[in-house]
Amino acid sequence: MTLPIASVPNGTVTSAKGFSAGGVFAGIKTPGADKKDIGLLYSERPCAVAGTFSQNSIVSPTVTLDKQRVGIDKRVHAVVVNSGCANTAVGDQGMVDAKAMTELAAAHLGVSGEQTLVSSTGVIGVEIPMALMREFIPKINVTANGGGEFAKAILTTDKRTKEIAVSFDVDGVTHTVGGVSKGSGMIHPNMATMLAFTTTDANVDPAFLQATLSEAVKLSFNQIDVDGDQSTNDTVLLLANGAAGGTIISGGDEASEAFTTAVLKVCQHLAIEIARDGEGATKLIEVTVNGATTTDDALKASRSCAASLLVKTAVYGRDPNWGRIFMAVGKAQIPLDESKIDCFVNDIQIVAEGKAISYNVQSVVSALGGDEVRLRVDLNIGDGTGVAWGCDLTEEYVVFNSAYTT
Amino acid sequence: MTLPIASVPNGTVTSAKGFSAGGVFAGIKTPGADKKDIGLLYSERPCAVAGTFSQNSIVSPTVTLDKQRVGIDKRVHAVVVNSGCANTAVGDQGMVDAKAMTELAAAHLGVSGEQTLVSSTGVIGVEIPMALMREFIPKINVTANGGGEFAKAILTTDKRTKEIAVSFDVDGVTHTVGGVSKGSGMIHPNMATMLAFTTTDANVDPAFLQATLSEAVKLSFNQIDVDGDQSTNDTVLLLANGAAGGTIISGGDEASEAFTTAVLKVCQHLAIEIARDGEGATKLIEVTVNGATTTDDALKASRSCAASLLVKTAVYGRDPNWGRIFMAVGKAQIPLDESKIDCFVNDIQIVAEGKAISYNVQSVVSALGGDEVRLRVDLNIGDGTGVAWGCDLTEEYVVFNSAYTT
Repeated sequence: MTLPIASVPNGTVTSAKGFSAGGVFAGIKTPGADKKDIGLLYSERPCAVAGTFSQNSIVSPTVTLDKQRVGIDKRVHAVVVNSGCANTAVGDQGMVDAKAMTELAAAHLGVSGEQTLVSSTGVIGVEIPMALMREFIPKINVTANGGGEFAKAILTTDKRTKEIAVSFDVDGVTHTVGGVSKGSGMIHPNMATMLAFTTTDANVDPAFLQATLSEAVKLSFNQIDVDGDQSTNDTVLLLANGAAGGTIISGGDEASEAFTTAVLKVCQHLAIEIARDGEGATKLIEVTVNGATTTDDALKASRSCAASLLVKTAVYGRDPNWGRIFMAVGKAQIPLDESKIDCFVNDIQIVAEGKAISYNVQSVVSALGGDEVRLRVDLNIGDGTGVAWGCDLTEEYVVFNSAYTT
Repeated sequence: MTLPIASVPNGTVTSAKGFSAGGVFAGIKTPGADKKDIGLLYSERPCAVAGTFSQNSIVSPTVTLDKQRVGIDKRVHAVVVNSGCANTAVGDQGMVDAKAMTELAAAHLGVSGEQTLVSSTGVIGVEIPMALMREFIPKINVTANGGGEFAKAILTTDKRTKEIAVSFDVDGVTHTVGGVSKGSGMIHPNMATMLAFTTTDANVDPAFLQATLSEAVKLSFNQIDVDGDQSTNDTVLLLANGAAGGTIISGGDEASEAFTTAVLKVCQHLAIEIARDGEGATKLIEVTVNGATTTDDALKASRSCAASLLVKTAVYGRDPNWGRIFMAVGKAQIPLDESKIDCFVNDIQIVAEGKAISYNVQSVVSALGGDEVRLRVDLNIGDGTGVAWGCDLTEEYVVFNSAYTT
């Protein structure tokens, strides 16, 4: 039997028991209504922690430091995050400042610096304004209702916060998984960076926690695309503090299955919201590839399609140009048989057995005009399925990323 | 000693002895001043032939057919090319039509269909209008001055033809290498396809011919980027007819070295012209990566940088945003030491040992405003060097590829 997963109304990163958070405006970003630029996430109970990080050869020292402090034998109490400055490519000072940020947060919360993580997002090549950190980190008030403030504090030019929580019951004990993310916005002169912080009050075995997060990230954050560029600061963290009081979750049972599903649900929601909020985007594009030889092939092909500029511009222009979909699936270089491919826009079939079929053009153009467009490619040669999410490419993307000169 | 390579004034694909070509307007494309849409390239002497083709899992049957007809033991006399229709994703009819095109061209020229190659570029998912082929292929007049007509016949929405020839002398015998290419233009509903046809009157050993072309393509066409998408029809051919009357070129001597250099020169020119003519582009971007551990690392990193949307938009906006260059080089995931990286725009240094240095911002902004922008990244950890070429990303790219709805 599968345990049901429920949505938590107004769920956020502090919906799981024992987590509190807050945010403050320190002036790292330009001021604005209700803006915040330093956030703090805290659990009095020590948390098992899992993380996935940018694969870029150049990473922020915050990523390097977090990697050292995340592991099966590690426990953490807090994460401090600033937006507006990436603390990347600033030489040795970067690591000095990253550590100092964790010390400031730890002193404020009364925990150990070694058990505090740090993330930064914003301009590359500029040092963190440590005077602001020293002044404002101690002013952050962490509360059980502070998830929303934290969600605001990590944004750069995102148009909205991205938050969710879900829960499931095991033997009368409610377990919650919550999270926040940011990404896809750009400020001058800046680079999109993707951050996500997820929490749970489940009592999770650390190795199972990392395995669950890695699998969820593979099917969520690693399947989205806005512009093909990979940040130096990308980070996803999952903190588990066990505050729900349930028995240990370590795989192989119903509760573990529910936990895995809950984490995947949270990660996919946060990832999809990043794609939807892509710079200049007017719509979300969901690409499903079915019938591939393997799941990995299907994931690769769906992401190739969601990342193709020609697919993105065709969707923007409401052009049912399926030749571009073929091209984009084919450039993933997975095994396929062209004569077996079917294509659908929303649920309207436009290609059968590799060839155009007659369809109502107006229906397809209309489908492409919605806020969400679903493209489906059935390869019909196996059982592998994969889904990826992107957004359309508009003139606004170009304007946003080129119109600001230093 | 190295043999000097000379430019051939007004050089084209028929500059090499024994090659003739022509073009005709058949009405596959929409009409326009001086437009042509079927081209024919011919050599009475049989040619050794080398080719490189699209790696897309979905390819045009013209690519499949050419692959069968190109090889060390094969000889060819002609290439027929149409623009306006890609002959891709049309089911079994595609191969039937591709073969029929070669038969029509062969009958017209009095050669064997098996020794005739074919390329198509244009709309995907639409069958070749064979009635037009039957009517117009026999009307193509091939002449020794017809290289320019052929160059026009292969264009889609390219803004200009791309042609070149170079020559070198071996023991008083002049050897010429010429070529034409097309690419980077889009028409509705269409996909950029890259085609290049190169010729030489040198007497080249077929295995050496293929090795030379493969290496040249690696350093030219495989190092350019307009939008990250890979066509189903990409083809580069090199035909060698031996008409110069020189001794056989098969590697290991001065003449072979000159031949290799000449082919690389022709391929790089044709590739760079494609990047310069990228859809919506206002400038050419050349990215050089020096001091990588290996040549392959340098090639990979330079192309990653030339292909980055954030680098392309920064150059368009004249924004010396070197954080994006770092990000793009790093996402190639090659070995590097951040603290050793130097960056230059044209020859102005903007980053030293991984950190911003003070430079004259107005000079850099002015350099970014030119028609050609040179970015250079010195990794300073080895001897590997690589160069790649791209173009800036402008609103026009988006408009061009989205504003046409069916």
